[in-house]
Amino acid sequence: MTKTPSTLLARYRQVRSAMEAAARPLSAEDMAVQSMPDVSPTKWHLAHTSWFYETFVLSDPAFSGYKPFDPAFNFLFNSYYEAVGERHPRPKRGLLTRPSAEEVLRYRAHVDAAMADRLPRLKEADLGRLRPIIELGLNHEQQHLELIHTDIKHAFSQNPLRPAYRELTPPKQYPVPPLQWLEFDAGVRRIGHAGDGFAFDNEGPSHRVFLEPFAVASRLVTCGEYLAFMADRGYERPELWLSDGWAARKLHGWEAPLYWGRQGDRWSVFTLGGMRMLIESEPVCHLSFYEADAYARWASARLPTEAEWETACTDAPAVGNLLEEDRLHPAPLANDGTRIAQVFGDVWEWTQSPYGPYPGYAPAAGAIGEYNGKFMCNQMVLRGGSCVTPRTHIRATYRNFFPPEARWQFSGLRLARSL
Amino acid sequence: MTKTPSTLLARYRQVRSAMEAAARPLSAEDMAVQSMPDVSPTKWHLAHTSWFYETFVLSDPAFSGYKPFDPAFNFLFNSYYEAVGERHPRPKRGLLTRPSAEEVLRYRAHVDAAMADRLPRLKEADLGRLRPIIELGLNHEQQHLELIHTDIKHAFSQNPLRPAYRELTPPKQYPVPPLQWLEFDAGVRRIGHAGDGFAFDNEGPSHRVFLEPFAVASRLVTCGEYLAFMADRGYERPELWLSDGWAARKLHGWEAPLYWGRQGDRWSVFTLGGMRMLIESEPVCHLSFYEADAYARWASARLPTEAEWETACTDAPAVGNLLEEDRLHPAPLANDGTRIAQVFGDVWEWTQSPYGPYPGYAPAAGAIGEYNGKFMCNQMVLRGGSCVTPRTHIRATYRNFFPPEARWQFSGLRLARSL
Amino acid sequence: MTKTPSTLLARYRQVRSAMEAAARPLSAEDMAVQSMPDVSPTKWHLAHTSWFYETFVLSDPAFSGYKPFDPAFNFLFNSYYEAVGERHPRPKRGLLTRPSAEEVLRYRAHVDAAMADRLPRLKEADLGRLRPIIELGLNHEQQHLELIHTDIKHAFSQNPLRPAYRELTPPKQYPVPPLQWLEFDAGVRRIGHAGDGFAFDNEGPSHRVFLEPFAVASRLVTCGEYLAFMADRGYERPELWLSDGWAARKLHGWEAPLYWGRQGDRWSVFTLGGMRMLIESEPVCHLSFYEADAYARWASARLPTEAEWETACTDAPAVGNLLEEDRLHPAPLANDGTRIAQVFGDVWEWTQSPYGPYPGYAPAAGAIGEYNGKFMCNQMVLRGGSCVTPRTHIRATYRNFFPPEARWQFSGLRLARSL
Amino acid sequence: MTKTPSTLLARYRQVRSAMEAAARPLSAEDMAVQSMPDVSPTKWHLAHTSWFYETFVLSDPAFSGYKPFDPAFNFLFNSYYEAVGERHPRPKRGLLTRPSAEEVLRYRAHVDAAMADRLPRLKEADLGRLRPIIELGLNHEQQHLELIHTDIKHAFSQNPLRPAYRELTPPKQYPVPPLQWLEFDAGVRRIGHAGDGFAFDNEGPSHRVFLEPFAVASRLVTCGEYLAFMADRGYERPELWLSDGWAARKLHGWEAPLYWGRQGDRWSVFTLGGMRMLIESEPVCHLSFYEADAYARWASARLPTEAEWETACTDAPAVGNLLEEDRLHPAPLANDGTRIAQVFGDVWEWTQSPYGPYPGYAPAAGAIGEYNGKFMCNQMVLRGGSCVTPRTHIRATYRNFFPPEARWQFSGLRLARSL
Repeated sequence: MTKTPSTLLARYRQVRSAMEAAARPLSAEDMAVQSMPDVSPTKWHLAHTSWFYETFVLSDPAFSGYKPFDPAFNFLFNSYYEAVGERHPRPKRGLLTRPSAEEVLRYRAHVDAAMADRLPRLKEADLGRLRPIIELGLNHEQQHLELIHTDIKHAFSQNPLRPAYRELTPPKQYPVPPLQWLEFDAGVRRIGHAGDGFAFDNEGPSHRVFLEPFAVASRLVTCGEYLAFMADRGYERPELWLSDGWAARKLHGWEAPLYWGRQGDRWSVFTLGGMRMLIESEPVCHLSFYEADAYARWASARLPTEAEWETACTDAPAVGNLLEEDRLHPAPLANDGTRIAQVFGDVWEWTQSPYGPYPGYAPAAGAIGEYNGKFMCNQMVLRGGSCVTPRTHIRATYRNFFPPEARWQFSGLRLARSL
Repeated sequence: MTKTPSTLLARYRQVRSAMEAAARPLSAEDMAVQSMPDVSPTKWHLAHTSWFYETFVLSDPAFSGYKPFDPAFNFLFNSYYEAVGERHPRPKRGLLTRPSAEEVLRYRAHVDAAMADRLPRLKEADLGRLRPIIELGLNHEQQHLELIHTDIKHAFSQNPLRPAYRELTPPKQYPVPPLQWLEFDAGVRRIGHAGDGFAFDNEGPSHRVFLEPFAVASRLVTCGEYLAFMADRGYERPELWLSDGWAARKLHGWEAPLYWGRQGDRWSVFTLGGMRMLIESEPVCHLSFYEADAYARWASARLPTEAEWETACTDAPAVGNLLEEDRLHPAPLANDGTRIAQVFGDVWEWTQSPYGPYPGYAPAAGAIGEYNGKFMCNQMVLRGGSCVTPRTHIRATYRNFFPPEARWQFSGLRLARSL
Repeated sequence: MTKTPSTLLARYRQVRSAMEAAARPLSAEDMAVQSMPDVSPTKWHLAHTSWFYETFVLSDPAFSGYKPFDPAFNFLFNSYYEAVGERHPRPKRGLLTRPSAEEVLRYRAHVDAAMADRLPRLKEADLGRLRPIIELGLNHEQQHLELIHTDIKHAFSQNPLRPAYRELTPPKQYPVPPLQWLEFDAGVRRIGHAGDGFAFDNEGPSHRVFLEPFAVASRLVTCGEYLAFMADRGYERPELWLSDGWAARKLHGWEAPLYWGRQGDRWSVFTLGGMRMLIESEPVCHLSFYEADAYARWASARLPTEAEWETACTDAPAVGNLLEEDRLHPAPLANDGTRIAQVFGDVWEWTQSPYGPYPGYAPAAGAIGEYNGKFMCNQMVLRGGSCVTPRTHIRATYRNFFPPEARWQFSGLRLARSL
Repeated sequence: MTKTPSTLLARYRQVRSAMEAAARPLSAEDMAVQSMPDVSPTKWHLAHTSWFYETFVLSDPAFSGYKPFDPAFNFLFNSYYEAVGERHPRPKRGLLTRPSAEEVLRYRAHVDAAMADRLPRLKEADLGRLRPIIELGLNHEQQHLELIHTDIKHAFSQNPLRPAYRELTPPKQYPVPPLQWLEFDAGVRRIGHAGDGFAFDNEGPSHRVFLEPFAVASRLVTCGEYLAFMADRGYERPELWLSDGWAARKLHGWEAPLYWGRQGDRWSVFTLGGMRMLIESEPVCHLSFYEADAYARWASARLPTEAEWETACTDAPAVGNLLEEDRLHPAPLANDGTRIAQVFGDVWEWTQSPYGPYPGYAPAAGAIGEYNGKFMCNQMVLRGGSCVTPRTHIRATYRNFFPPEARWQFSGLRLARSL
């Protein structure tokens, strides 16, 4: 946990400037577009993360005298907090040509100035009350930093010109190391977050679970392996799919992961650097849960539960192909001799666990409590972070969640088995 | 497990005739109607359960010489078995005015005759192979026996004349006993089916789970208690609802449980006996998971997990307001001094557990394997059976499952708490 | 115009019994089904046409003492008369398993008894007021007599068993006579209904139009000619279609007229007598306006306007393949030497005229006025009657109308040209 | 008809620069937004009108050596010409953040330079062939000039900030002159375009019609008159509405014209100058055909047919509140003593005529022929131009057309009557 006002402010500045850096390659037009209801415009991400501080921090008596940048923004940039009042409908975020991107950046500067001015001078009691909210705000902003990347990738993919977000260097390639099964005995395990550092409320309480014996794969599934599934008619065999998955496949006409395009008898892939040929040693990504599940069944395996994943990965080193690596795409595994590889970064790993409350879970009181708990239905847990997740944002207890048909996140899989 | 051919045949006859008895109050027109895609016509239930034997039993070499009643029925009355081939689309089951109800009854008699003729004479080896499938067929038919009741109730509810399926005697009323919390310590528990009797594949394997300390309510939530939730604006307060639940409430305009109708300042309820005034001491039913979940949050409680439910109810006596009681509606609790009441019968109890595979679960090979496993996504588990569940069909390990917005089953709730 | 009470009653009886005769080949289940929102169950047609007399005639003081058969029927069997009050929603007519077909027939008998009892004894003044409404009721019932045929045909077509409504004798075949162009000079013409006989309000007032010189075809387009359009890729060439028509074709996947089915390299067709091979000399039917329009463009022609059609056909003899011929399907043309053939019966002929009011048109006051006028938008006029139109129902001024994508009526075309 | 290359070029430059002037008040973000499928982004209008010349003019051998600005633009900026090939789907025009507005302006300059360079030097024969296409291109561009205004108005109306396109001066108010009925005798009339000037193909051929005696109103219906309709429960009385209109009203929840907002017991209106109070003497606008039709019925009148409108207005002076007046909103009528007022400009006037071909109409060959003819179904004709129609674009024979539920054009009404 950040201890002093000045380290808190330093971290605030670091997170805020990372957001603006992520927006820099984009034009004002790029920042305004919304390519589907799940996606938000970059400009909206920039504004909403400022709205968070304005609503939950700068409105605190400790910031008395703070003047909101524009009262209308409370309506425009609320995401889903029912307790805060009415809000602009999500699928219409792309209609907000005003305020301009430039004005949103001024909004950010206005909020930043207020934070920088007052934060170092907060009384102890005020700091005690506000620090957890500011910490939440920073972690919230890091989530939107990741979404800026996944959302603009989707938006650009809808443009027949297939623009690049940025030029990307092609990855170094390595032979794919053989998949190994790491085995775990039956027993009572403890999972969930405990201790001092920041965690979201959904990561706790720490609690005990009983796991029957299982094994997890030493690495992620690669594009080459996924091509073998496709070649074996994986997309045409209903017996490999969940019933809802098969319906989704037919409805959407899925024949390959999102962003793959056929080029004669080869496959290309749309990346944040534009279209390029597929590299077979890369982890497969932009899969729905249904595709990950079908692949696992085809491979005579299954997805891990989130408790199994956390048990297997809890001691993995906190390194990986994360946002700061600046690759912006999952990368082939350099066989580094670690027992379990690619745990953090590269792709979010689908688990077979529906997203729900841990035993004893209770959301915070008030609007802040709408953060996680109310989404605990119809979504699946993903673990481990991706190539666009900030390094300081991820940990072994982190629970990401998306509906089973979502494909626009960097989502892939690691296999598991019951023993 | 049924042991001899003759007891098996006796049980077969009992299940089959219960189906026909359930159809008896209905006209041919009643038996043909489909009031929404989730609902099937009575006639379809009668035919599909015969199709099961024709497809999975009578096609066996042990029944050589069996002539299908009508080859077209394989297409018409397959429900969702992809491995068996193409099938008539589910939402169009109500368009099948032909075959007539009368012909479907002849189809049943044709199948029954073949079963009665050959079953007693099966060789030991054939019986060994076929007995599990016949047992599955009987349990399958009992599920459809329950559905005949819930489906015709829905169909009749759509008719402004509100016809009665049958005349029902009004229930005896009792004062509602105070709700008690039955407490359970933390520990490793074993859940899931083990032993000799029939169980569906999704009830196993038996396995260990760790439960943190919890309590469950001694009885079901009543209509009177639910009215208090409504009076406290339960349907207007988003903070009580899951996000998807709130969206469903708004989309469908839910303001009360399904089948409730306002009569001035009182409530009436549509039952299988027609419309009548609501009785406050009855268990509330025809709730979606979302409503059950919102009620529990309002009551400062939660729904039990299925492991908690099974732990709490595993020793409950196998009695209750089940189909054979012939009430066809959940009934007020006669305070009978048992520790935990209303476990079996009355209403299916929503749990907070999404429906998924137990550790080590593997579906059967072939088409029979499509029975349960492929639905393990986007559904919630319900436990305990209802007032239209046959007594020989229910047990503590039984896992029913429906999507969280489903309301046309007899579904209610029992509260739970973490300690 | 029917003059005396007794001839009026005779005509009433004739129309009523024709309805019941049309229902006779059907089971109670058949009579209850609704295969799409545009289609109504036979039972509903039988009841609604009785509702008409109950609402608009038997409620008249001249029938004082009449007791409605069942007060609920006013809600159930109102079709679209807003002025009469709330009504059962159209797409849910198929959910009415009660009242039974049998009870609906009793309802008819109840209404018939009241009519037969009082009608002959009406005073002159009462008769003068009621005769036009009764005439309207009879013509209204004849429309529903036609719809019973088209609606049950659609319902049966949805059943994979393809049941036959009745056994039909295959038609006598003739060589198709060459198409001739009948030419008409420019000039002022009078169209619309004038004179004594019954006509719907939309057929008047009689008025003048100016027609530039035109020609119409001597006969209908045949299936053989339509096959040539299909063979010339008529369904794949957007330049032949209206923009909305092309969108409809893609949306619905049209590749042939409704009810055609491919059998290897030949075509079969579903008729009221079941499936049989297509006969090329038959008039093509079950076309949408869009298909008729595209065919005409392909044939370097166009559809006639309704004024042109009426001008060309006004003197045609009132004979043809109408309901009383009992063929229930359009028939090959026996070259009979008439100048213009197949005017009445066989198929309704799409015109290029949108359905709108004639100059000076005013609907009747009150609920009766909702008969025609309020549908004067987004529909196209069809002329001439079909093989299921009663002979006494059709005339040269008759204006039928359906949305341009409708295909379940017996609808075909005759070509026209500007000169 | 423009005669010489230099006058043609002058007119080209005038039209092109008017487009760019219309875009000038908008930011790059404003120019990219698409607020519903019917609306196109400003940037798309700017590009598509250039694509027209590139595709139909600059590809001509007379412009040999012309290099397309970017080959991808043929796909991106085709609107609906099936004959020209595949195109970007209409509802996704708002996703094109690239090319930027700046690049689209460079595209315009590139096309303009090629036109300016070669046009004055075209050989007589080439000019003869290309002049009609260039004329069509200019008139096409003027249509898009109007659409820039109506589309950005819709987009801005979706933004809770209600931005203004430009500052507008409030209109001068006048007392509303009493409505007078201008009467016309029965007789044969000639309508449609004849003579030398440009007209769209759908305005011809000139032809004769017969009109029964009728009267048209001397001026448009005002907001004040429309308020009386609303006060008389016009939006709640189904008997005033066409059946499809009533369904649309309920579906969309219409309670007032588009862009009206209730402010306590008064009404405000969103204009291109932002929100302001409603002025009762202004012509009512942003009505659907259904609302115009219901209003007329309420007023014991009807809408004129397009032949009546053209007959009544053919001699009206070609002046009015058109785009060049720069009011950008319909204006109160200054009683100017003319017999028939507000004919051109202010609002497009709904007629009761469905949009269809005139007798003898034939579209041009090839892709250019897709301009008008293929939309001749399911739309209604509007006449007279609006406050955002360029003056040189409108004439008495001009036929505009929109679906009956469209409201985002400046559409209002003038009453008519049969005599």
